[in-house]
Amino acid sequence: MGKNSCTNKLKIINDPVYGFIKIPFDIIYDLIEHPLFQRLRRIRQLGLTQFVYPGANHTRFQHAVGAMHLMGLAIEVIRSKGHDITMEEARGVTIAILLHDIGHGPFSHSLEHSLIRDTSHETISLMYMEQLNESFNGDLDLGMEIFRNRYHKKFLHQLVSSQLDVDRLDYLKRDSFFTGVTEGVIGSDRIIKMLNVLDDQLVVDEKGIYSIEKFLIARRLMYWQVYLHRTVVSSEQLLLMMLKRAQLLTANGMQLFATPALSYFLGNEPGKFDLSNKKAFLEQFASLDDNDIFTSAKVWCNHKDRVLSILSNGLVNRVLFSVKLDNNPFENDLIERMRKKVSGHLSISSDEAEYLVVSDSISNYAYSDMDDRITILDKKGNTRDIADASDMLNISVLSKTVRKYFLCYPKFIKELS
Amino acid sequence: MGKNSCTNKLKIINDPVYGFIKIPFDIIYDLIEHPLFQRLRRIRQLGLTQFVYPGANHTRFQHAVGAMHLMGLAIEVIRSKGHDITMEEARGVTIAILLHDIGHGPFSHSLEHSLIRDTSHETISLMYMEQLNESFNGDLDLGMEIFRNRYHKKFLHQLVSSQLDVDRLDYLKRDSFFTGVTEGVIGSDRIIKMLNVLDDQLVVDEKGIYSIEKFLIARRLMYWQVYLHRTVVSSEQLLLMMLKRAQLLTANGMQLFATPALSYFLGNEPGKFDLSNKKAFLEQFASLDDNDIFTSAKVWCNHKDRVLSILSNGLVNRVLFSVKLDNNPFENDLIERMRKKVSGHLSISSDEAEYLVVSDSISNYAYSDMDDRITILDKKGNTRDIADASDMLNISVLSKTVRKYFLCYPKFIKELS
Amino acid sequence: MGKNSCTNKLKIINDPVYGFIKIPFDIIYDLIEHPLFQRLRRIRQLGLTQFVYPGANHTRFQHAVGAMHLMGLAIEVIRSKGHDITMEEARGVTIAILLHDIGHGPFSHSLEHSLIRDTSHETISLMYMEQLNESFNGDLDLGMEIFRNRYHKKFLHQLVSSQLDVDRLDYLKRDSFFTGVTEGVIGSDRIIKMLNVLDDQLVVDEKGIYSIEKFLIARRLMYWQVYLHRTVVSSEQLLLMMLKRAQLLTANGMQLFATPALSYFLGNEPGKFDLSNKKAFLEQFASLDDNDIFTSAKVWCNHKDRVLSILSNGLVNRVLFSVKLDNNPFENDLIERMRKKVSGHLSISSDEAEYLVVSDSISNYAYSDMDDRITILDKKGNTRDIADASDMLNISVLSKTVRKYFLCYPKFIKELS
Amino acid sequence: MGKNSCTNKLKIINDPVYGFIKIPFDIIYDLIEHPLFQRLRRIRQLGLTQFVYPGANHTRFQHAVGAMHLMGLAIEVIRSKGHDITMEEARGVTIAILLHDIGHGPFSHSLEHSLIRDTSHETISLMYMEQLNESFNGDLDLGMEIFRNRYHKKFLHQLVSSQLDVDRLDYLKRDSFFTGVTEGVIGSDRIIKMLNVLDDQLVVDEKGIYSIEKFLIARRLMYWQVYLHRTVVSSEQLLLMMLKRAQLLTANGMQLFATPALSYFLGNEPGKFDLSNKKAFLEQFASLDDNDIFTSAKVWCNHKDRVLSILSNGLVNRVLFSVKLDNNPFENDLIERMRKKVSGHLSISSDEAEYLVVSDSISNYAYSDMDDRITILDKKGNTRDIADASDMLNISVLSKTVRKYFLCYPKFIKELS
Repeated sequence: MGKNSCTNKLKIINDPVYGFIKIPFDIIYDLIEHPLFQRLRRIRQLGLTQFVYPGANHTRFQHAVGAMHLMGLAIEVIRSKGHDITMEEARGVTIAILLHDIGHGPFSHSLEHSLIRDTSHETISLMYMEQLNESFNGDLDLGMEIFRNRYHKKFLHQLVSSQLDVDRLDYLKRDSFFTGVTEGVIGSDRIIKMLNVLDDQLVVDEKGIYSIEKFLIARRLMYWQVYLHRTVVSSEQLLLMMLKRAQLLTANGMQLFATPALSYFLGNEPGKFDLSNKKAFLEQFASLDDNDIFTSAKVWCNHKDRVLSILSNGLVNRVLFSVKLDNNPFENDLIERMRKKVSGHLSISSDEAEYLVVSDSISNYAYSDMDDRITILDKKGNTRDIADASDMLNISVLSKTVRKYFLCYPKFIKELS
Repeated sequence: MGKNSCTNKLKIINDPVYGFIKIPFDIIYDLIEHPLFQRLRRIRQLGLTQFVYPGANHTRFQHAVGAMHLMGLAIEVIRSKGHDITMEEARGVTIAILLHDIGHGPFSHSLEHSLIRDTSHETISLMYMEQLNESFNGDLDLGMEIFRNRYHKKFLHQLVSSQLDVDRLDYLKRDSFFTGVTEGVIGSDRIIKMLNVLDDQLVVDEKGIYSIEKFLIARRLMYWQVYLHRTVVSSEQLLLMMLKRAQLLTANGMQLFATPALSYFLGNEPGKFDLSNKKAFLEQFASLDDNDIFTSAKVWCNHKDRVLSILSNGLVNRVLFSVKLDNNPFENDLIERMRKKVSGHLSISSDEAEYLVVSDSISNYAYSDMDDRITILDKKGNTRDIADASDMLNISVLSKTVRKYFLCYPKFIKELS
Repeated sequence: MGKNSCTNKLKIINDPVYGFIKIPFDIIYDLIEHPLFQRLRRIRQLGLTQFVYPGANHTRFQHAVGAMHLMGLAIEVIRSKGHDITMEEARGVTIAILLHDIGHGPFSHSLEHSLIRDTSHETISLMYMEQLNESFNGDLDLGMEIFRNRYHKKFLHQLVSSQLDVDRLDYLKRDSFFTGVTEGVIGSDRIIKMLNVLDDQLVVDEKGIYSIEKFLIARRLMYWQVYLHRTVVSSEQLLLMMLKRAQLLTANGMQLFATPALSYFLGNEPGKFDLSNKKAFLEQFASLDDNDIFTSAKVWCNHKDRVLSILSNGLVNRVLFSVKLDNNPFENDLIERMRKKVSGHLSISSDEAEYLVVSDSISNYAYSDMDDRITILDKKGNTRDIADASDMLNISVLSKTVRKYFLCYPKFIKELS
Repeated sequence: MGKNSCTNKLKIINDPVYGFIKIPFDIIYDLIEHPLFQRLRRIRQLGLTQFVYPGANHTRFQHAVGAMHLMGLAIEVIRSKGHDITMEEARGVTIAILLHDIGHGPFSHSLEHSLIRDTSHETISLMYMEQLNESFNGDLDLGMEIFRNRYHKKFLHQLVSSQLDVDRLDYLKRDSFFTGVTEGVIGSDRIIKMLNVLDDQLVVDEKGIYSIEKFLIARRLMYWQVYLHRTVVSSEQLLLMMLKRAQLLTANGMQLFATPALSYFLGNEPGKFDLSNKKAFLEQFASLDDNDIFTSAKVWCNHKDRVLSILSNGLVNRVLFSVKLDNNPFENDLIERMRKKVSGHLSISSDEAEYLVVSDSISNYAYSDMDDRITILDKKGNTRDIADASDMLNISVLSKTVRKYFLCYPKFIKELS
């Protein structure tokens, strides 16, 4: 009994999005209390998005708890439609969703392109789960099987990770709530009510088709209006360049203030994570969060390296890059010309100017027709891909990767030209 | 001064959707006070939709006031982008939107297919506006010019009536609010912020493109989930058949209780509205509202005509038809078979059974590419139709009329077959 | 099984206040479908309040369903605190709350002071419940015992009717939602979470004390800002006087259009309801609703009786009385002077003027210290009355009846004086 | 023109509480862009409250912008009631509210009791304003006069700081929103609509009396349910003790990692802030924020000083003190006994145990009848204190300081006893 319910412990978390959230199992309570999970309180869900939407300070902790809440609703709905989910399975799938992002570090996108290159947060999540499983004496076994999609009831994994998982159902709603972009709001509760299972696969009842359409459109809207907002992108580039610069200076033996955890990653040659240093890596990574980045950047504002100080100052005082977007790559000529202006203006080398004039691309697709398709179930028991079921959505477009090229450069350049 | 602002009168209406709504001009206050406008308090915006969504009791009064509020916001936005709207024009376009639905009767759809056949609510709106204009000594002249699209600044008319008018921006939001179908919520305020004017035409700033996509998808969702909800459709058929039956019985000289206004329309041969009876028609129509239909139906529940009493009882006690939907017309054979069953079961003639087994079609398109297109304005000043600007929406589908066929029949038929 | 759950029937109602509401038992579904309950769709919860707050068109149907929903939450909370509520009891108390207002007619306050004088809606509710119980073969027995407070677990009755019943928890929240008076919003869910049971009495856990304070203050705010709003009061007087006038004219043998149900009550001598006419009374009353009042008033606008036509016109076209409020009764001299003005102005008798110049009082108390006190339970198991437990609320004031006197008179009087 | 409006710059901030917020003046835009204001992005409005309410990560930046927004509404309302506010005054009072909290550091309460003892955030705010005024060439003169209450129109200062200032109107609403304690929601917009001015004093129109009652009750609720929540209090004690301990260790010459800004304050003898070090103090303080505290604490978790490491670990991993509340001071005997247990259990000195067993008090009053009273204005132009105007609120209680004593101690103590 104790194992499969939440007994004598705090049972309720107050969430501005859903109201009261119940903690359904004792082990969920214990996992939430664990330092590895508590650290998610110190990692913003949307990184630097708060530079554009000042309300976006919500954390990965809040998201994980919210997704756990939606999982409870989904389990209830699926059971009510006559599909068996045992208490053990419910517990497992709830563990899986609670921990699905446990391996996220601060500003994941920027970090994964600099300090921990070649080590994805998914890999780290799995390693932390293994650690936790050990300290919980194997009690996470089933949860991890589901997470890894090795459990025979495939729909349980799909609830955790697919194109219609409760992960997305929470983060779209939550990000919309905290950014104030009310148009991104999705009907999580209605979509969950439409979930069903056929042949161990997650499907959507036919009358949920309009909700799915709206979900995909809202997701696309959130991508372009929030996640890939030009100013968010330029902020991330600022951060990425700052970290790369700090890494280079460190490699060159220059003295640089950094918190211990950040020191570790600045000194650690990127991409060199392997079994030999796994334990140290995980330990250091666990103590790295948003705070380390900001405290270090504040000190670097006064660093004698011109490039580092400009970038750090930009991050700390929100002096962002200008940014141009285009559907085609920017011409090298143009980029070179801008770098020259910058190097001339600041009396820095052209290599150094590369940190201040940056061009790359971002991309997004709203729906993938490759795997984990969203499947619609009609009343006669037939299934169709949403791409076929919806006469409305141009799925070939939705599933096409949209790529946009950007060019970031210091605001003062305009005045030079 | 007095003419162009709201001076010494009640200035605020409390609206659950927008909060406090200010009345911007004295004449708007006076028009709201007028009996012709007050009657809109007695006409539900969504007719019988409350049979499916019990919250949907909001009235045409509320909608008209809400649309007036959005018009104020739109005027402010357009002015802030450097386009001139004089105080006179602001006043005119506000009058136009306030009165745009003044000619609606109760359950418009059903009524226009029975009692007032061939007389649309648009026609009646215009006639009431003329009446009002007379009693206001021509003070509505400019408003009516705008309403009729005879004013040279075309965008003012487009704010009142186009594919992106404040009429839709209010009713989608409002209907979504009162039905509880939260997914239909649109970002009226953001869309309004994106409005602009080019060459006297209403356009949308480029970065509003995702909001427009979402607006069109939400509109489609509301159509199928609310406006054309199968149970709403079957309720309207019940009402339509009841009115037609009452009309026939009246024509046949049978005694029938009815409120005076309803009596007039039951006795008036449909389609016979012309100049000779215009005055009486308008006077009687102005005193007809939701209440007349329900009070009369309650009495008819006990009428000796079997068909009338079944239909009235269905309306009063919410004993609705069963309804089947299909993409193709139902076969005559099937319909005939069902009518036979009904006539046999109830011992009524096969003519009478036609009131109880009804087949027809409903249709909808989300976007019309014929006229009043939604035009996107990019930063360079170029315009494109939303159909071209959005890579996402399948506009050819959106603009295609979707037609669905329905077959309504008494619930007891199932048991017979 | 079938008896104690909701099986094969529609299970969900969409409510704009709470979202999806589940129907918990088959009998609840059947009761909702019953004509006696369906008629509540045609009776506004707040009568003429929509004259002041145009959004207030929600019905007694919506309120009853909402209160039923809160009952489900309350049952769950109380059970979770270790108190037994059997499935039968849950079913009974849910029936009791669903039907608690089944005896309401249209505009109860005005009606109970005119057409059905001396017959309260509570009495009628009980009689309808008896009727329903018969047609459901005694299946409502336990529900009625609880409703009548004859069941030994007193807290079940208190959930239905007490100073902290789910009736109030729903209507305060709902009325606040639909009027747009957001300040009246109460934390129904938090209050329910704080409910507990001690010695078969409903109590509130100590940490809910601030929520209770806020509930009482919000209730008081709603009283003065909505329920007893001066314009609402004056509207009700208009209606009351109109009905009284129509009653008098009928008694005097004057011809008067009225719907059949309204005819019955106009002709029925008030206060004469007894066993001899019980059946007819209940039948006629069941077919009386908001629609009858409005349709009849519309016809009376043109009645030759000056008083009736003025009052009816006031109701139909929202030409309301002026109203003065005072903490003391208005002097007879003043009232007489005003009546004289009116009778002179309109050339009517002074008796007739009494229908147009009306003075009476309204009263309210926020908390009664007489019975059904709100009891606070501290952690040691001790209880105190909220009046003692709250150092903040001036309960002696809260529990004091506040009486305000009003004087209603036609708007044109000002111009005469 | 440019001076008194917002011209060519970003004009809108998206806020989840109010939606779109317009920036009304260019100087407001420039102040928001200033590093001193940007740093407020890095300081949570509610410090450690996120330990109890995970959504409470909103920042002082958001609050300042929100209060600025409400100021705009208040100005509009007061002008609409015929009171003159010049453009210069509007600009000044908006500057004053935007900067009213500019001197806040991280976790103000804990910091002011440790690192910067005897220097209140109000003092620091004023010093930063002076700095800003210099760099803006005296453009903040009028704003500072209003802030310091030296301007002759006293009501302008009262809008910034009084018992009904827009500061409170924003933070109560905002804190309620982000904590999810929906009961704390106040009707900011309605209260603002009721504001008026008499003899240069801010007053409230009579019909706002119920809103004020509700505001005071909501404020009280927020105090006990959020601001002084026992777990929030115990978290702050943990932080306070950690900082004190670090300060002592530093004074004792022990090596301690700290960010540069934190180092400064750890080394700076508390209370020693004077003119001689003002410039350094302000500079260092400006670079101190939430991040410094957390990064340092993370390192201290492994410090060899047992007390520091326990406290730091508590803060980082949310291993909070147990806490007892009482209306009376805890007896010294009890406290000593607990300290002994702790020192025995951990093998630390009894001096050291004082950092782990802490007793102090918290206090709050909801309304002060000493100064800045809330004044109600009736229709005849008479004024009364809310304490007299409200028959409902027990103002003598509301204005009485409520003091509660707390005792914090490590969780393991329970097991020892």
